Amino acid sequence: MKVFRLSFLFLLLCGSAVAQNADSVMFRKLFDEALVNGNSYQNLEYLCKKIGPRLSGSANAQKAVEWTKKLMEGYGFDRVYLQEVMVPHWVRGEKETAKILVGKTQISVPIAALGMSVGTPKAGVTAEVVEVQSLAELAVLGEKGLKGKIVFFNRAFDPKPIETGIAYGGAGDQRRSGPTTAAKYGAVGAIVRSLTGALDDYPHTGTTLYLPDGKNIPCAAISTKGANRLSTLIKSNPSAPVKFYFKQTCQHLADVLSYNVVGELKGSDKPEEIITIGGHLDSWDLAEGAHDDGTGVMQSVEVLRILKATGYKPKKTVRAVMFMNEENGARGGKKYAEEAKRLNEKHIAAIESDEGGFTPRGFSFQSSPALVRMIKTNWQSLLEPYQASSLTVGASGTDIEPLGIVPGVVLIGFRPDSQRYFDIHHTPADVFENVNRRELELGGAAIASLVYLIDQHGFPKN
Amino acid sequence: MKVFRLSFLFLLLCGSAVAQNADSVMFRKLFDEALVNGNSYQNLEYLCKKIGPRLSGSANAQKAVEWTKKLMEGYGFDRVYLQEVMVPHWVRGEKETAKILVGKTQISVPIAALGMSVGTPKAGVTAEVVEVQSLAELAVLGEKGLKGKIVFFNRAFDPKPIETGIAYGGAGDQRRSGPTTAAKYGAVGAIVRSLTGALDDYPHTGTTLYLPDGKNIPCAAISTKGANRLSTLIKSNPSAPVKFYFKQTCQHLADVLSYNVVGELKGSDKPEEIITIGGHLDSWDLAEGAHDDGTGVMQSVEVLRILKATGYKPKKTVRAVMFMNEENGARGGKKYAEEAKRLNEKHIAAIESDEGGFTPRGFSFQSSPALVRMIKTNWQSLLEPYQASSLTVGASGTDIEPLGIVPGVVLIGFRPDSQRYFDIHHTPADVFENVNRRELELGGAAIASLVYLIDQHGFPKN
Repeated sequence: MKVFRLSFLFLLLCGSAVAQNADSVMFRKLFDEALVNGNSYQNLEYLCKKIGPRLSGSANAQKAVEWTKKLMEGYGFDRVYLQEVMVPHWVRGEKETAKILVGKTQISVPIAALGMSVGTPKAGVTAEVVEVQSLAELAVLGEKGLKGKIVFFNRAFDPKPIETGIAYGGAGDQRRSGPTTAAKYGAVGAIVRSLTGALDDYPHTGTTLYLPDGKNIPCAAISTKGANRLSTLIKSNPSAPVKFYFKQTCQHLADVLSYNVVGELKGSDKPEEIITIGGHLDSWDLAEGAHDDGTGVMQSVEVLRILKATGYKPKKTVRAVMFMNEENGARGGKKYAEEAKRLNEKHIAAIESDEGGFTPRGFSFQSSPALVRMIKTNWQSLLEPYQASSLTVGASGTDIEPLGIVPGVVLIGFRPDSQRYFDIHHTPADVFENVNRRELELGGAAIASLVYLIDQHGFPKN
Repeated sequence: MKVFRLSFLFLLLCGSAVAQNADSVMFRKLFDEALVNGNSYQNLEYLCKKIGPRLSGSANAQKAVEWTKKLMEGYGFDRVYLQEVMVPHWVRGEKETAKILVGKTQISVPIAALGMSVGTPKAGVTAEVVEVQSLAELAVLGEKGLKGKIVFFNRAFDPKPIETGIAYGGAGDQRRSGPTTAAKYGAVGAIVRSLTGALDDYPHTGTTLYLPDGKNIPCAAISTKGANRLSTLIKSNPSAPVKFYFKQTCQHLADVLSYNVVGELKGSDKPEEIITIGGHLDSWDLAEGAHDDGTGVMQSVEVLRILKATGYKPKKTVRAVMFMNEENGARGGKKYAEEAKRLNEKHIAAIESDEGGFTPRGFSFQSSPALVRMIKTNWQSLLEPYQASSLTVGASGTDIEPLGIVPGVVLIGFRPDSQRYFDIHHTPADVFENVNRRELELGGAAIASLVYLIDQHGFPKN
């Protein structure tokens, strides 16, 4: 019996080694296809250069919907379809202007209206400016200190966290909730330091969240150099109050019918089980939405193309989803989850790539530490040669989070290196030229490899 | 006794945990200093913008020597000195010109003389061009096929390896040994496809190795787009031979006295034991030598600055070395090793940063797998939060390799992410603007952390 048991153990170990080896061979095939015959870079070039900025509700957003649908049809995916979703339609209007007013001196500074902001009156807003570092300071200053003023939120990015997303999270309340909180105390405008650790002249746009009470004040992002200048002038003029002037003509138009764009490779064994990979098709209006999130969208399409090109027949259905409206409403993601629920779809996993097309680091799992431990034990060594083996508990992505309403789905965020992302995030610098071909391709291949593992083995159970 | 033994084991484990915790606290201090008060980025800006290209023997190389010496003196390092070294003095001369000649059609293509190449005759070289993919093909073609011809080495970078340095290694023989090998068969010139995976108009220079036999032919790098064009024209004109014309006025001048620049923090406990960190101060003449190797040089200075700024008193002597002449002779590295040997210096470790100032991945150790296993066991978890935990057996750096003649030294290469390096390597695009502040700073902090561990604990013994 002892001999038998040992032989059995030996066979088990061999079986495991053979499976591991087959996985490793498949990984190499997927990476080779991405690196040698990759299409994502040229597709991204088209999206950025031939279509360009594509904020929800815009004509370009519609062009992007039509083009990505055609692109996936051209690849011969098993099913390509549109999913209707009503989206907000906010427009920036004319280029914003802003000036710091110190006595008779006027100093122009670069601003950009925050997404979803109301415009100013035609003559602009001019008022004394009050600098704060946190929302908590507003309560201390109260209506007495803020009524009729422009509030200037100037808390900087914390340079210490290694992941820049942590600094973004730490400063983000100023943009999201600063303006509405200032409005409560009677402020007439809000200026927010751009959410970046870089020191330059780009204002970084991004959505501000208004309360439904209708007390909305115009708000804009100011470049970090502009913010430093404003802060210095306030500090060096303690007796004479510094004023600020800004004008913007942004407005909300009626909601527009738009679409998530979906492509599928149908599962050969369990077609009812679905693995979704996605990014968002909409982008801010200031640039080409290259890293945010053209790269994620084109990687998602590429994952299906790579799998198909290597001749791999997925057991489960693998779906690439180009979500609409992540930037200012996240309605595409919500709609996708509602439809999944309504149709009783069995989602096994969803992976989002929405942190830029930078060199891969790994994946974060919005799941239990126990599952991540098992994933590391079983799969980490396979990812190591591809430098994408950082597997952690963490956030997934705005578009797939609503899918959490579907029981049993594992939500996963693709994690590229984070160092450069917030230099260009939501600025005119988010252009195709700032994407590196190999970094983009390695990301697509890493996602394809994880999809392959989930498809072949399901998530590890021990 | 059993209780005693267990208690002893417990105390040992606690001691180890305390040490680990102290290390982790120190790591955080080093990274905070680098990220909050970092100097390397502004120092690099000075080196790139105020000094600029600094090929060995040039006036700029001398300026860089003087400025880095002053910089380190300004930081109050314990000892700053110059180490004399005679270096070659090669100059490019006028901008090169090159044309593909097909019948009466002339097509200009971008070339750059390879470093150390001889010039062409005044009228340039014009000859039929023969494309090869490897040096082995030359032996097959022989004198009959090559005499009087220009050899065009066109083997492309292999896109499949994840580390781009592997592709560079795989294609590099064409640049290093292609021209001399072609000369043996009577070729009159050599054109080498630029050593990059990118497809663009930059010719990438770099040293070619001539044999001492004096049979030197002029040679140049051609941009990858130019190479593709030339190859296509050759293939589409099988009956009419395609000719190539190029002219370059580069030449060798007399050797020049130059210097390695050395700064030290003196060890408080074992000052005779030395840990060296280095990069090379010289750079190619086509651009600012930002990633190659301004970043490595400025990180080396920064390591000493960070250690000092945190109040850390190293037990061993920590030395930053700005090596001269890595690019076309590596004489600074050889001189440093010779002096170390002559003075009987006890070098414990040497770390080189010469793969660009990109986001850190880890370190490679030119040592036994057994040592790397022990280093991983003891130190990898400390580096993981800083995303610099890839610890492998591998190459170190051109400048520190000669130090291998000193017994017991461990040679270490800092390994940043490799994806973008060869896009700009040895081209006019290697400029300050292509360096990301945080990536650079994280690299300096990662090196400082490793230096701290070696200084505190020596290399692990089990």
